[in-house]
Amino acid sequence: MNNDVICAISTPPGMGAIATVRLSGEGCIALTDKVFLSPSGKKLIESKANRVHFGRIIYNNEILDEVLVTIFHSPHSFTGEESVEISCHGSVYIQQKLVELLLEQGARLATAGEFTRRAFQNGKFDLSQAEAVADLIASESKSSHRVAMNQMRGGFARKLADLRDKLLQFASLIELELDFSEEDVVFANRDHLYNLTLEIEKEIDSLANSFQLGNAIKSGIPVAIIGETNAGKSTLLNLLLNEDKAIVSDIHGTTRDVIEDVVNINGVTFRFIDTAGIRQTSDVVETMGIERTFQKIEQASIILWMIDTTTPIDKIETLAESILPKLKDKQVIILFNKADLLSEGQENKFQLLFPDLDAEKLFISAKKQQNTDHLQELLIEKAGIPSISEDDVIVTNLRHYEALKKALDAIQRVIEGLDVGITHDFLAQDIRECMFYLGEITGQISTDEILGNIFSKFCIGK
Amino acid sequence: MNNDVICAISTPPGMGAIATVRLSGEGCIALTDKVFLSPSGKKLIESKANRVHFGRIIYNNEILDEVLVTIFHSPHSFTGEESVEISCHGSVYIQQKLVELLLEQGARLATAGEFTRRAFQNGKFDLSQAEAVADLIASESKSSHRVAMNQMRGGFARKLADLRDKLLQFASLIELELDFSEEDVVFANRDHLYNLTLEIEKEIDSLANSFQLGNAIKSGIPVAIIGETNAGKSTLLNLLLNEDKAIVSDIHGTTRDVIEDVVNINGVTFRFIDTAGIRQTSDVVETMGIERTFQKIEQASIILWMIDTTTPIDKIETLAESILPKLKDKQVIILFNKADLLSEGQENKFQLLFPDLDAEKLFISAKKQQNTDHLQELLIEKAGIPSISEDDVIVTNLRHYEALKKALDAIQRVIEGLDVGITHDFLAQDIRECMFYLGEITGQISTDEILGNIFSKFCIGK
Repeated sequence: MNNDVICAISTPPGMGAIATVRLSGEGCIALTDKVFLSPSGKKLIESKANRVHFGRIIYNNEILDEVLVTIFHSPHSFTGEESVEISCHGSVYIQQKLVELLLEQGARLATAGEFTRRAFQNGKFDLSQAEAVADLIASESKSSHRVAMNQMRGGFARKLADLRDKLLQFASLIELELDFSEEDVVFANRDHLYNLTLEIEKEIDSLANSFQLGNAIKSGIPVAIIGETNAGKSTLLNLLLNEDKAIVSDIHGTTRDVIEDVVNINGVTFRFIDTAGIRQTSDVVETMGIERTFQKIEQASIILWMIDTTTPIDKIETLAESILPKLKDKQVIILFNKADLLSEGQENKFQLLFPDLDAEKLFISAKKQQNTDHLQELLIEKAGIPSISEDDVIVTNLRHYEALKKALDAIQRVIEGLDVGITHDFLAQDIRECMFYLGEITGQISTDEILGNIFSKFCIGK
Repeated sequence: MNNDVICAISTPPGMGAIATVRLSGEGCIALTDKVFLSPSGKKLIESKANRVHFGRIIYNNEILDEVLVTIFHSPHSFTGEESVEISCHGSVYIQQKLVELLLEQGARLATAGEFTRRAFQNGKFDLSQAEAVADLIASESKSSHRVAMNQMRGGFARKLADLRDKLLQFASLIELELDFSEEDVVFANRDHLYNLTLEIEKEIDSLANSFQLGNAIKSGIPVAIIGETNAGKSTLLNLLLNEDKAIVSDIHGTTRDVIEDVVNINGVTFRFIDTAGIRQTSDVVETMGIERTFQKIEQASIILWMIDTTTPIDKIETLAESILPKLKDKQVIILFNKADLLSEGQENKFQLLFPDLDAEKLFISAKKQQNTDHLQELLIEKAGIPSISEDDVIVTNLRHYEALKKALDAIQRVIEGLDVGITHDFLAQDIRECMFYLGEITGQISTDEILGNIFSKFCIGK
């Protein structure tokens, strides 16, 4: 295993008051000593660990910066290796130059996630915990933070270890039988085995099922805003986006392919998808636009259907004909916009629209921000994110989900096998396969390729 | 003087592997203890200074993050006060929540530059050094970094202290004479006084004159690219911008009003100003565009004049008539573009153009990147930035420049006064005025308003 000295800027890119450059690997303290000068002249290598040292970064008899250096001895560091953190002034020039100097002294630029990969390889945590570090860093809401923190602290890892124990128990019983198969001895209590398998299946199934919630928490709940072009969709979207501007994210540096408008409302992340206006048309291009809108409805969990109340009722009903069939199994909120322009008693006729559709109906004015607080409450209610306790294990990672599905397949084959009285060696193989897939999640089973794939999605410096 | 607990995120904004939240002020260690839990349960307040402590940030029995906390005791910290640095995971959510928790415990959000202001007020350095901290952070090139580092390390401050000593010496001699004025005693040797004043004037003048260079280093050397619309200006600009993409800056977070394209070539910063194409026109709007181009020529130090060599010579000459008068006192580089299309011997006729203009002439192909290396060398040569040693004092700050000009005025009045034999009390007043302006630079003379102005330009967290 490599433990050459790696280094990287670990704080966010750009200019700030301070920035941190991190090193890890055998000899990194002595390496830092080559460019560091403390006021007393004392070397870092002679100092005790977990101390902060003030001094200067010097090159060619020139001062690059006045810095604070913290040293960590193996194994008491994040990576488990000898490590150094240099806190410098957050100038872009200084940060780059400092890394350059360290590279000149023999360090190597860390690849994405390499610090965390080393921590994993040094047994600081399992793979699911390592992946949670990346999720923790990317977390933008209370829920996604809590789920990632639970996972990083090992909740998921413990659950998987528990499952593995049960599978091992099963496997040993089965293999014992295999060894004595010629004597036709049945060691394992078949009922006991069967119940154990059902238990395992239930647990894996529940973990796999948590992915839907986990994904909603991590990526945000997809909300499509549909309606006619002039219904006020953009006004509403801007309004929602501006509510909590501090947490609205550019999602820069993350791996999501499509950048949509992400808003955090009371700790729940929503991904708002604006759509082309729907109207009756014979124009081919427009028809394609409307088709795309329907696809977006398909992808969304919640539909905000905006209706301009200044439009004649019969026109609304005609338009609705194409929309209504698409709304099955969706959470729908109908927003009757421009409600401030309605005269008294007019609301009633809108309330009576679409009697067969299970939808919330809300009268708002996006422009005048009337009743939009109520809309936010409704959104959170429809999102249906349960409050997550510290003990809840929720799968948020597609890789884990896929491994769980495969493990589930395998365990279900075991159950079927027991049902039809399949031979032991087939059972044993399915059990091993189930364990294999669970082991992929924790990293007990891993290849360089898998690891490379996982850590390449991290940011540099972590 | 206030020393309540302030806190802020000090690392660049956004997501990264790690981020640092900083606190300063009496009681900030005990305040941090309220949300921090070390594995041993030991309190930070019981720990020794300059140590790093691993632990968890806890609120409502929930873990926000696993962090490293470094504590500093007064006066051994950046601000001179008791201080804490919390290194957390660089999630936007964690950073904001951590600050929120600290505010709940009684900390106050630091205003821009407040940490540095406290360092200044606690005598850690003078005002010119405090301002250099901001310059250091904003530094994007080797030269601007060196100038800021020299200033931060006190080069300018020592020079000013030296000047102040000389002025004090002068003042005390003059004021001694004042005290005994009725006895008509002349204590001061007039020649000595006169020479001392000339020396002071020379030094202030040289400091003030360094501002032109300092400003070019700090803000970049303004380069206007002019020429016809299709001469290849944009291609050239893109080429220059891409040469060293890593250091090209968005200048986000800085205070510059106009965002131009800034490129760092071999440690020298250039500000490239693209201009509207120049051509003969009677159109009023276009004429206004061309007027603006001429204004930009006025502001630039270096002019890159692009000429399309596929244009007929007579047309080039006609166009040049309006441009040539604007180029007086400018460093001009004429770029004959599309030179790859020239047939042999054709270069000569272009070389003969504009014999009265003192300009470099270069044949390039922006599209094919021919000879553009040479252009970069020429740009650096024309920029004329001398190499700066560690002892060079260069003024980069407009506030300092203006104070120096006023101090220069005052000392020149002293010289004139000595020339015409003005009375001592007038001399004494001018000397005091000169000292006042120098004191404004170092902060010996300062008002809340001045300080507020200076530090409001810092980033939060510094």
